[in-house]
Amino acid sequence: MTQVGTVETQYLDLPTPVRLDCGRELHPVRVAYETYGMLSPRRDNVILVCHALSGDAHAAGVALMPPTESTRDGFGADDRDGPGTGGKALGWWDGMIGPGKAFDTDRYFVISTNLLGGCRGTTGPSSLDPATGRPYGADFPVITVADMVRTERAFLDELGIERLAVVAGGSLGGMQALEWAVLYPDQVDAIVPIASTHALHPQGMAWNAIARESILRDPAWQGGQYYGTGAAPSAGMGVARMVGHVTYLSAQALDGKFGRRLQEGDDVRYSITDAEFQVESYLRHQADSFVRRFDANTYLYTSRALTYFDLARQHGGGSLTKALAGVSARTLLIAFSSDWLYPPSASREIADALRELGKPVELEVIDAPYGHDCFLLEEARQIPIIRRFLADEAR
Amino acid sequence: MTQVGTVETQYLDLPTPVRLDCGRELHPVRVAYETYGMLSPRRDNVILVCHALSGDAHAAGVALMPPTESTRDGFGADDRDGPGTGGKALGWWDGMIGPGKAFDTDRYFVISTNLLGGCRGTTGPSSLDPATGRPYGADFPVITVADMVRTERAFLDELGIERLAVVAGGSLGGMQALEWAVLYPDQVDAIVPIASTHALHPQGMAWNAIARESILRDPAWQGGQYYGTGAAPSAGMGVARMVGHVTYLSAQALDGKFGRRLQEGDDVRYSITDAEFQVESYLRHQADSFVRRFDANTYLYTSRALTYFDLARQHGGGSLTKALAGVSARTLLIAFSSDWLYPPSASREIADALRELGKPVELEVIDAPYGHDCFLLEEARQIPIIRRFLADEAR
Repeated sequence: MTQVGTVETQYLDLPTPVRLDCGRELHPVRVAYETYGMLSPRRDNVILVCHALSGDAHAAGVALMPPTESTRDGFGADDRDGPGTGGKALGWWDGMIGPGKAFDTDRYFVISTNLLGGCRGTTGPSSLDPATGRPYGADFPVITVADMVRTERAFLDELGIERLAVVAGGSLGGMQALEWAVLYPDQVDAIVPIASTHALHPQGMAWNAIARESILRDPAWQGGQYYGTGAAPSAGMGVARMVGHVTYLSAQALDGKFGRRLQEGDDVRYSITDAEFQVESYLRHQADSFVRRFDANTYLYTSRALTYFDLARQHGGGSLTKALAGVSARTLLIAFSSDWLYPPSASREIADALRELGKPVELEVIDAPYGHDCFLLEEARQIPIIRRFLADEAR
Repeated sequence: MTQVGTVETQYLDLPTPVRLDCGRELHPVRVAYETYGMLSPRRDNVILVCHALSGDAHAAGVALMPPTESTRDGFGADDRDGPGTGGKALGWWDGMIGPGKAFDTDRYFVISTNLLGGCRGTTGPSSLDPATGRPYGADFPVITVADMVRTERAFLDELGIERLAVVAGGSLGGMQALEWAVLYPDQVDAIVPIASTHALHPQGMAWNAIARESILRDPAWQGGQYYGTGAAPSAGMGVARMVGHVTYLSAQALDGKFGRRLQEGDDVRYSITDAEFQVESYLRHQADSFVRRFDANTYLYTSRALTYFDLARQHGGGSLTKALAGVSARTLLIAFSSDWLYPPSASREIADALRELGKPVELEVIDAPYGHDCFLLEEARQIPIIRRFLADEAR
């Protein structure tokens, strides 16, 4: 399969403030985005792709001006180099977006935006606060997944796009897809939440709390105002990334990939500071490469938003069925058997609620060993499922 | 059931250096210990109880001079107050050790020591280095589980105890029991490794690496020489403790205990720094109480030792069966269905290897929902299993 070619991230400034769940308004808001494929004359072929915690707008193709490293790294899949990228940055879902792929750019106009609060072009904590002339830091308003979706809605308004054929995404991206279907039921034809949930379970909340705590406790965080100080909470965010990384993989995947193999030699070297085992070295590498390209405050805000996300609490007075009562989009849920961070049971609960409401829903649980990262690594097995679902949609 | 009463930790200085796996010798070595019950005239009724990563010698009874808080907290079970302790420190395995309990002090003389490298009385990184007159810090030799066991052996020599009726322990304590059976096969009648393993799996290694990394990256660690500086890596060790804590519990246990309940009120308060959910508040509490009573370097060294532990590599040239070929102790393995840090599969591998060798072994997998912490929380279900095993032993 071919790729969408070289792409360039574009930027759009929203003309009006975004009203946030916390009660504050945010202005100005810039949105970084990329597009793949051609918009139809009737503007009815738009797929919005939403990224996960550490992603960005560069979902497909080769970046014209590559960042320091492949954005695929954003999800712990960086050890899998894209084919033929020659060191250039291949989008994080390149296997899914393109001619003949799951989100087929021969037919659809695919839009990918960096989410609100991001650090890759869209307004976030590292952006300048117009009230002070310096970066927001921890003065940035605390945002929700619904705020991200409202921003995406406002952004699409500017592009003159009223309806979406599909909203799709994995993990936090899937939360955005679900939130779209609830907030704007008459503007979304179909959603494809992958490896996602209607509300993170308490253990997942705990992992996210630990990751944030690690950043907050780093003295270099400086109450969030580390910009321009020459110091950043890289130590804390590195640990946060390691925690995240292990939760994205399955125990089986780590076993298969590293076992208990030593990094060097046949015996341990008796060190408490060295990375002696391959799995230890790998985690350090993941941490180091992540902190070079990601902003710690964006990590905090995004982790907070995905922890808050709770469709039943937000929209159903505690009932998921009530929360989903207004949904009109057809729904395709994909989950992975070994994903213990966003387990299949969460997708099943969504499917059950939608079925109870008599709404069209499909759930596909793919039996695969790589944990949460499957949504990035198991592209080949998702493609036929999504293509069939979208073909049904077209009929 | 009654308790062993008030107890006092005692101390013994070994007369000769302990030879370590790393090639170094350690001297002086002091061992902190407690005993429960009476030593028989033939000295043949001794049970050695070995503690886990964050434990100490105070395994049973009420401490005469209680530490700042119950040592039960050492394993994440501190929310379960011991009965009638009136704020005094109840031993971490009090439900298991005492008259009529699993390790019956009417019949056995139970000895519990703080492990080598510890911070609760036994020589460790916070002890004075005779070469410099200041605490070892990171100059403390890197130790192994075998080194812990050699120290226990030398300590028992001083007490005039040649043979052990039983070596028992959970988690890292179970590793010590296994190491005893391999290192001193003719001196151990039976071992009871609970919620343990012959080698931590790669995901468990990863969690331990992250915990250590969190301490090492805390600037207050100061290369390990933080003693007397007025600063300690509490921030990093707090995060390490949170990571550990979540791995000690099951996702189901966290769900049942906290769900997604908010700490205050009916809605989120839009804060990235506050603990808004109960599970977040709980983790902070665990971290804060742990750093008050535990030394970060001991955490580093002990975590290193349990990550190194690998019976097959150390004693069998990669084969677990070869490693266990010399074992003569009867073995009772107990594992818990929901323990994903020390999963039943690891105990099963040990049982299979021993059976292949024609050695007496029993494996009991207890179906219980609390994860690794079951070895502390499910005392009532372990007691009859252990009592029956030891009764068989006596015949």
